[in-house]
Amino acid sequence: MTESTMTASSSTHLTPTHLTPLDAQDPLRERLRAAAQTVRDTTPLAQAVTNFVTINFVANAQLAAGGTAAMSFLPDDVIDTAKICNASYINVGTLQPYYKEAFPEIAKAFAGMKHPWVLDPVAAGIGGTRTSILMAFKDYPPTVIRGNASEIITLARMWGCTAQAEGTRPQGVESVDDVDTAHDAAQHLARFIGGAVAVSGAIDLVTDGDATYRLTGGSLYMTKITGAGCSLGGVTATYLAVTDPLTAAVAASAHYNVAGSAAEGAAHGPGSFQTEFVDALWNATPEAIAKADIAREN
Amino acid sequence: MTESTMTASSSTHLTPTHLTPLDAQDPLRERLRAAAQTVRDTTPLAQAVTNFVTINFVANAQLAAGGTAAMSFLPDDVIDTAKICNASYINVGTLQPYYKEAFPEIAKAFAGMKHPWVLDPVAAGIGGTRTSILMAFKDYPPTVIRGNASEIITLARMWGCTAQAEGTRPQGVESVDDVDTAHDAAQHLARFIGGAVAVSGAIDLVTDGDATYRLTGGSLYMTKITGAGCSLGGVTATYLAVTDPLTAAVAASAHYNVAGSAAEGAAHGPGSFQTEFVDALWNATPEAIAKADIAREN
Amino acid sequence: MTESTMTASSSTHLTPTHLTPLDAQDPLRERLRAAAQTVRDTTPLAQAVTNFVTINFVANAQLAAGGTAAMSFLPDDVIDTAKICNASYINVGTLQPYYKEAFPEIAKAFAGMKHPWVLDPVAAGIGGTRTSILMAFKDYPPTVIRGNASEIITLARMWGCTAQAEGTRPQGVESVDDVDTAHDAAQHLARFIGGAVAVSGAIDLVTDGDATYRLTGGSLYMTKITGAGCSLGGVTATYLAVTDPLTAAVAASAHYNVAGSAAEGAAHGPGSFQTEFVDALWNATPEAIAKADIAREN
Repeated sequence: MTESTMTASSSTHLTPTHLTPLDAQDPLRERLRAAAQTVRDTTPLAQAVTNFVTINFVANAQLAAGGTAAMSFLPDDVIDTAKICNASYINVGTLQPYYKEAFPEIAKAFAGMKHPWVLDPVAAGIGGTRTSILMAFKDYPPTVIRGNASEIITLARMWGCTAQAEGTRPQGVESVDDVDTAHDAAQHLARFIGGAVAVSGAIDLVTDGDATYRLTGGSLYMTKITGAGCSLGGVTATYLAVTDPLTAAVAASAHYNVAGSAAEGAAHGPGSFQTEFVDALWNATPEAIAKADIAREN
Repeated sequence: MTESTMTASSSTHLTPTHLTPLDAQDPLRERLRAAAQTVRDTTPLAQAVTNFVTINFVANAQLAAGGTAAMSFLPDDVIDTAKICNASYINVGTLQPYYKEAFPEIAKAFAGMKHPWVLDPVAAGIGGTRTSILMAFKDYPPTVIRGNASEIITLARMWGCTAQAEGTRPQGVESVDDVDTAHDAAQHLARFIGGAVAVSGAIDLVTDGDATYRLTGGSLYMTKITGAGCSLGGVTATYLAVTDPLTAAVAASAHYNVAGSAAEGAAHGPGSFQTEFVDALWNATPEAIAKADIAREN
Repeated sequence: MTESTMTASSSTHLTPTHLTPLDAQDPLRERLRAAAQTVRDTTPLAQAVTNFVTINFVANAQLAAGGTAAMSFLPDDVIDTAKICNASYINVGTLQPYYKEAFPEIAKAFAGMKHPWVLDPVAAGIGGTRTSILMAFKDYPPTVIRGNASEIITLARMWGCTAQAEGTRPQGVESVDDVDTAHDAAQHLARFIGGAVAVSGAIDLVTDGDATYRLTGGSLYMTKITGAGCSLGGVTATYLAVTDPLTAAVAASAHYNVAGSAAEGAAHGPGSFQTEFVDALWNATPEAIAKADIAREN
């Protein structure tokens, strides 16, 4: 999702040998089109509990993708809002002291309400407070997880989904690993939560632990603006409000790749790219989203 | 303010039957022009205690409207800043735990200083913490209230200004009611606070409990970016720093409608709309603001 | 940095009488070019602990300048992140209650790690909490300080670096003093911390207490968007991650002035200026940055 031109992974030991481009008639494409159309038709509210850096971009991306946004932090506020929407998004960037108790309380309430939610494990592995919160989520797991390769690898290890360390230690909010390195961790995590896991990178990988898809497109500029990943998490929640976890994660990634490619041609730098990208999210049709560049692992 | 093309209300029982377009020579128009000119000439500081989603947009809108901005949260910080400015803005989105004590303390201090302020009761009715804060404000009321129809109806009910429930329950930060439904609630609230109330929607309604005005213009895109309402509240505080409550609320709405209409023509989606809108706020002349589309109820 | 056309100071008693334009062959110019090239080549991470108003702009400016960003608030998070980067940025806007203990704890940890950092003393002099935090920093001082003239004067006075009150009391986040008024305070502060101090204004002044430089350029629009100063502080940290304090402060100011001048020509108001400015940060070459308008005091 974040880089359009990278084509090969240096850690080939995990690269699947067989990838088949998704046929134009594949039922997944119709599910993507229908999900995007439903978002346009119903303007679903997807709540976000997210970091302060990119909170504005998350909201504007959800609106531009066709949904609507509400941001809250206090458990009473978040739980009341969850009652009037079909999906939420939790992003563990820019932690505050009270999150250590509040975030587990929110996840527990979501579990009690069977409320679907997307987790973005930003900077997993950095700081004891974050680790404590992420460990608590193991007991009340999300429906979809979206992160970069380093975050997915770290979370899978934290939750005991992968015994063997794969990839390197976290390096802040930027991934130091590529999507292939996180391939197995993503599948293990997806099976553990019984939902879907999306790994964002030069190539996006989305899996429900059974079927695994790879998506290409987007723009190199997406690594030169802050919040491409966070806002993708928010838009994944927008889609999760209207469809199943795997379709939601693939649809959000496809929508982002289509919009990113369109925006790049009109941009003169990261400032104009961000403006063009929001416009392109808004102007992407359900048909164009359904035609995104997707391959399936055999 | 938020939608340019909606023309009729479905709940006609509260629609006033007589509306007169404001004459070009009406004294209110000269007050609007003078207020806008004074903002340009004096660059007034209007402090904001506002939510994390749109805090950047609030500040940039205040600057583009001709004022200047300072954002604070702690009572000592807010009260010190109130001493060096003529108006403040409080917006109850994205609450934090300490707001429950801090916000009433701030409102009490403003009352003691006779410091004028604008309240935006974002998401009124959602969460016990928010309700507690809004109830505390009843004892130290704001000078101007700006909200969407659902928020105004909910706040009027909370404060006992309207005995009868009107409209539906809150649905997050988006209004599920239209301006007409909030007509009586707005007038009752305005009389209670002895200031002005502005209801934003397809049509904006501004009242001091005696005179009531309706403003049209703006753009449909204003519902597709986050913060059109929050930043209008901030700009209302900018105007309140230089003029009376009713003129301030009408001037801010007029400025937004003129800028929104101008921006729409140059926009290709919500991303470019936001950029064009900030430019249009900056480029709107006091004369153009004074000529905004305004009608008065008879 | 913030205004391109102001040419003379009204408080001439402190104006240095001799300024020499920096020669094209001056070694500082090569240090600026090399620093900008190193940022482009190595994409250094510079952590920020900054205010909620402009946090997004700080991150995007760091990315557009060629670096990368990570924002944290909790001491465990900040200290862990400091271990994987070469410089941090602390900005004391929008204080929260726990900052009173957390910020001194962070500064002490940075001192223990000999971790270089940039301080932006936003609104110095407003509120007891802010004063308490700034006083605590005296024991664990930053490597670079960047502020407007009023903030630099106030901080120098707080820390006892200047016995005599110079300039007026703080007026919020906007400076009410000009760069010349802060000249001596900046030099005293720079000697005290053993690093560099940058005063931003119509003319930027940068000093290490020995050599003192003045930079011109930028755009009047930089006072009409929020965060020009905050983001300059963040970009100063980006440069501090790859070079010495004086070169870092001059390079960031030069980069901003070059980009601001370029952006102004393409802007139609503060909204488009911000977009053009981020693009211009990205497109400024190390050679152009090294050729910025700089004079040295004799």
